[in-house]
Amino acid sequence: MDLVPAIVQHAHTGRVLMLAWMNDEARRLTVESGEVHFWSRSRGRLWKKGEESGYVQKVVELRLDCDSDAILLRVEQVGGIACHTGRERCFFQKLENGAWVTTDPVKKDPALIYKK
Amino acid sequence: MDLVPAIVQHAHTGRVLMLAWMNDEARRLTVESGEVHFWSRSRGRLWKKGEESGYVQKVVELRLDCDSDAILLRVEQVGGIACHTGRERCFFQKLENGAWVTTDPVKKDPALIYKK
Repeated sequence: MDLVPAIVQHAHTGRVLMLAWMNDEARRLTVESGEVHFWSRSRGRLWKKGEESGYVQKVVELRLDCDSDAILLRVEQVGGIACHTGRERCFFQKLENGAWVTTDPVKKDPALIYKK
Repeated sequence: MDLVPAIVQHAHTGRVLMLAWMNDEARRLTVESGEVHFWSRSRGRLWKKGEESGYVQKVVELRLDCDSDAILLRVEQVGGIACHTGRERCFFQKLENGAWVTTDPVKKDPALIYKK
């Protein structure tokens, strides 16, 4: 399997939290550890979701689509924050009358999440 | 915006139905018509979801992620079938003990959906 998009959905609320990318190795690590791993296209390396922030994602269910080129992960989101902006989900912009409107609050300042 | 993955989610049940691809033109047509359009990577052309099957998707909400490289569409699915296999959703395979198991029934024979 090449690099494929992986959708992450909250297992209980059904909210779509984020989309990232998986290769075979990321999927293998995800299945073996029970925690979500991706392939970072920008950094060119594997990463465990939450490796810095602590906001890991525990796998509840892993699904594959009809063409075997997209993955759906239903997860428990530790800490309730999936987005690097400190929001619950990455899809916090909604199209309203032709403009992108931010609908979701920042739950925690990213400067406090990523202390380096 | 380049070609980006677009997640389609049932607006009422929250079920993730499918993932396809959008470019600027597909997004423009989607917003203008209120019905979901994609860019087909395999066919190299725009397509309106349901153009053959009649199973169109009516847009309820359109969202963009933090990096502006993924789209989330919440839709009403006409006919209750999103997958070309005749199933409600494309994500009908679930990983169970290392094997992909088909969990969803075929609601309508594709030969009857795509009569050509």
